[in-house]
Amino acid sequence: MEKPISPAVIRRMPRYYRYLGELMNAGVERISSKTLSERMHVTASQIRQDLNNFGGFGQQGYGYNVKYLHDEIGKILGLDREHNIIVIGVGNLGQAVANYRNFKGLGFNMVGFFDVNPNLKGKKIGGVPIMMVDELDEFMKDHDVDICALTLPKDVAGPMAEKVMSLGIKAIWNFALVDLEVPEGVIVENVHLSDSLMQLSYKVSKLK
Amino acid sequence: MEKPISPAVIRRMPRYYRYLGELMNAGVERISSKTLSERMHVTASQIRQDLNNFGGFGQQGYGYNVKYLHDEIGKILGLDREHNIIVIGVGNLGQAVANYRNFKGLGFNMVGFFDVNPNLKGKKIGGVPIMMVDELDEFMKDHDVDICALTLPKDVAGPMAEKVMSLGIKAIWNFALVDLEVPEGVIVENVHLSDSLMQLSYKVSKLK
Repeated sequence: MEKPISPAVIRRMPRYYRYLGELMNAGVERISSKTLSERMHVTASQIRQDLNNFGGFGQQGYGYNVKYLHDEIGKILGLDREHNIIVIGVGNLGQAVANYRNFKGLGFNMVGFFDVNPNLKGKKIGGVPIMMVDELDEFMKDHDVDICALTLPKDVAGPMAEKVMSLGIKAIWNFALVDLEVPEGVIVENVHLSDSLMQLSYKVSKLK
Repeated sequence: MEKPISPAVIRRMPRYYRYLGELMNAGVERISSKTLSERMHVTASQIRQDLNNFGGFGQQGYGYNVKYLHDEIGKILGLDREHNIIVIGVGNLGQAVANYRNFKGLGFNMVGFFDVNPNLKGKKIGGVPIMMVDELDEFMKDHDVDICALTLPKDVAGPMAEKVMSLGIKAIWNFALVDLEVPEGVIVENVHLSDSLMQLSYKVSKLK
């Protein structure tokens, strides 16, 4: 039954989840695939195809139950459980990630921040302390950590990834502009800002 | 000749550009598709297919000329010209974008930062002043701006997008967690951190 689902489908799922969440908040209980597709600017057929990867959730002529679909997509995305996150590198980007208001509501808990700058030691972000990187081993003994965000310069991201993997981290959210080498069973999700900017400039060049 | 190129191909091009740049910096002049594919962990056939979208750049049995391929991909990505960027919203994320060291080398120039917080007025980031949003109209009269980064809360991103479009901006780099509604001829590239985090948690849930 479990055939691999294409990355393009997975990339679209958070957007469905977001839209359905907004519909829920607006008190909408049921929505036709046509209305959903108009709001999201994707074809109704695309929505059906995407959802069919997971068994489909609509009834012909009846539309989607918003809360049910939202919750099911949440389960698909692993949002039916909480995730503990540490952030290593508390520069501007690390602070932006640490402060991001939306994560908590999705079940992502920031549990620790780490840096090498002694001036940051003991400061807190949202009540969570900034610790020094040499406290990481000790911290990991006492805490369940699911995800490590690396908001670090690229030359130190590789060694730090090795370090956190050696401490049992299986999921890295990598903001450093480097493709990390990880063994099978470890997941890396990249946020490469300059790759995104280059995609934008590609599209700009096509405008002319 | 110009058939539309799939978004997946476009998403991969910055990575090729980045790898080829690293090879250039390491003094490598020529590389076989096999070696390039091993380094990048994609198949040689994938590389060939991707590049064939743009006419192909290799010679059978001869490999790729690193600098030539790097420069050609740069042209495809619109990096053969400079782009001026303004950043609206100088919180942590805006400061991270403003400070990102890699952009300048790619020809992206930060030319102005804007916020509504009067405490930031007149401060500088990398020599570039932070101005108030009500100075934007005047600024745009005197400056060529290609790209506007919106590092704002989602409830103000929509109106600000309207504003900058009315001032002639055609490309928006949107970090706010909202899908902006823009007319044809305006480009939006999104960096949605929580969408990225949900993709990570999807993959984590598949690990179990």
